[in-house]
Amino acid sequence: MKDFSFSLIATDGMARRGRIDTPRGEIATPAFMPVGTVGTVKAMYPEQVRATGADILLGNTYHLMLRPGAERVAALGGLHTFMDWERPILTDSGGFQVMSLAKLRKLTEQGVTFRSHIDGSAYDLTPERSIEIQTLLDSDIIMQLDECLALPAEHKEMERAMELSLRWADRSKTAFGHQPHRALFGIVQGGDDAELRVKSAAGLKSIGFDGYSIGGLAVGEPQETMFRVLAELTPELPADKPRYLMGVGKPDDILGGIERGVDMFDCVHPTRAGRHGHVYTRFGVINLKNARHKDDPRPIDEASPNPNCRRFSRAYLHHLVRTEEILGAMILSQINLHYYQELCIGARVAIEVGALADYAAQTRAAWASGDLPPH
Amino acid sequence: MKDFSFSLIATDGMARRGRIDTPRGEIATPAFMPVGTVGTVKAMYPEQVRATGADILLGNTYHLMLRPGAERVAALGGLHTFMDWERPILTDSGGFQVMSLAKLRKLTEQGVTFRSHIDGSAYDLTPERSIEIQTLLDSDIIMQLDECLALPAEHKEMERAMELSLRWADRSKTAFGHQPHRALFGIVQGGDDAELRVKSAAGLKSIGFDGYSIGGLAVGEPQETMFRVLAELTPELPADKPRYLMGVGKPDDILGGIERGVDMFDCVHPTRAGRHGHVYTRFGVINLKNARHKDDPRPIDEASPNPNCRRFSRAYLHHLVRTEEILGAMILSQINLHYYQELCIGARVAIEVGALADYAAQTRAAWASGDLPPH
Repeated sequence: MKDFSFSLIATDGMARRGRIDTPRGEIATPAFMPVGTVGTVKAMYPEQVRATGADILLGNTYHLMLRPGAERVAALGGLHTFMDWERPILTDSGGFQVMSLAKLRKLTEQGVTFRSHIDGSAYDLTPERSIEIQTLLDSDIIMQLDECLALPAEHKEMERAMELSLRWADRSKTAFGHQPHRALFGIVQGGDDAELRVKSAAGLKSIGFDGYSIGGLAVGEPQETMFRVLAELTPELPADKPRYLMGVGKPDDILGGIERGVDMFDCVHPTRAGRHGHVYTRFGVINLKNARHKDDPRPIDEASPNPNCRRFSRAYLHHLVRTEEILGAMILSQINLHYYQELCIGARVAIEVGALADYAAQTRAAWASGDLPPH
Repeated sequence: MKDFSFSLIATDGMARRGRIDTPRGEIATPAFMPVGTVGTVKAMYPEQVRATGADILLGNTYHLMLRPGAERVAALGGLHTFMDWERPILTDSGGFQVMSLAKLRKLTEQGVTFRSHIDGSAYDLTPERSIEIQTLLDSDIIMQLDECLALPAEHKEMERAMELSLRWADRSKTAFGHQPHRALFGIVQGGDDAELRVKSAAGLKSIGFDGYSIGGLAVGEPQETMFRVLAELTPELPADKPRYLMGVGKPDDILGGIERGVDMFDCVHPTRAGRHGHVYTRFGVINLKNARHKDDPRPIDEASPNPNCRRFSRAYLHHLVRTEEILGAMILSQINLHYYQELCIGARVAIEVGALADYAAQTRAAWASGDLPPH
């Protein structure tokens, strides 16, 4: 059984090909982590998620602390046993969703108090309690509690939230203690301000973490702002630790993140888009609700390595989406998660051979070429 | 490639063990047919349905004629290709759901006109058009159009509907013509009146069908009434043709139907119950919404041949049901369909060895013993 560690295998420009070892298995990076919000990647069996190529899942502390509750999950053997996923799980700190979902929230130096959006019951979340919850879930990669602002935001606000997040990082490190079989990641904040970001990174480095998350991006700012912040920030992060861009994104966000030195990504987008009839392919995005697919016997992509892209006609998928059948959500979620993994696999191979620029250019050209012409 | 045929393999009292051959494969009887309402067994991939043991699916003519439309399905290669199910499909005539779902319906000697419950558009359904639609869908086992009344009903009404259904049976037979690779079933009507039922059966036999459906049961009457009608009716049906009890039922309805000489069953109940948190096991029905399961680490049934009954805790399934996660509908639909197939497999084996009475008694005793005691 291996402890948590990160190995850098190859670089190509700022991009990195790496491997994370954990007691529950390896994670090839750059990695996309499907989101299993409340103990399930929506509309997928765990073995179907694994079969798309996912090495690791994400679980949401906020959702799980409300239902079924961290102590309950622990009594039932931890989140892996609970959801029958034996490979690594990363958990967030809960802070982001407290800010976006919970009611009557109040932030103090100590932490945040809030009421559940489900039944109004009251909760406290402190840096220490967040670590405790994530440990009860038996998470393999734990996040510090931080304060994440939406952008645009005032400089003063960004500075205050970044400084608070740093103090919480310090408390999180103390609370986490020495647990070599799992990892604690600090979270860089500082909004769209390079100086604040660098200061945040320096503060976290001096505390020392197993990995560095980049929070507070993809929160309302243009993609170019996100890419600028990433390019300014990642050189400031330790080369020998993984970097995780939280909550990102669409395929082109991920490709751009990889080019700027990010190792890990997560997003609900592929499964949510699938439930709404949108699928991602090497030719870009397809809206299966569109009437152009109604009589189209062609599959999504007959050259795809994914059987679901070859076996069902567009007409059938259109029909499932229009009739709001659960099978539509199942198939389209699978297609999107599979495509995200294909994108990461391609990037990993390209970085190893020093050809990421070509891979990225070809990938973007295919996206730009668009879907098949109408039937 | 075999034409449609039925072979009676063994009998045990009134119960029958048989085999239906079709060009798309064998159907072991007694058979339970999962319902793929609108071109999908809800929340299941076709291969998952097959893996539960299903030899044949049912498709609903009413739903499919509205969306995506029979001519469209035909242009796309038929229903089997459309939904990627290569084994046999039975279709109903559409009549039952016109009566239960459609708006502004008007019944005449000629047929029925109605408006779609989805968008109000107008349709005609005659015995001839129903055969045409089912042929466009490329159904393997086709039903005549009939008029199905809810019970209780006036004797005069039951007689009128039965006589109309007989005249429609005759027109259906003419419209169907000679198609040995598929089957046309006549439908016995006559409500809860033995004399009318026998008269209906005699009329259908004199026309001559590949199989005999029993319609107009499980439409509001007590189970004992249904069982009485079955016991009176099945001796009047040809021994060398399959008998199909339409739209039935719960496991104890199916066991009772098998004991009274029925060969085929279909019902939305197992998948619908699954979507509502109810699962069927050899110990009866379990309501997973119930708080007693909240902390229960035990699986549904650790001795079940179905992996989904062994791998997930009751606490996890309770959580999925409470959070209304799609995976809950997926797992519980699968568990129910699997249990229905186990029930039919057990009955088939028992009939072959002349032990159906023992099998039925043991099955009912286990149902009566109830679920595991609380954790």
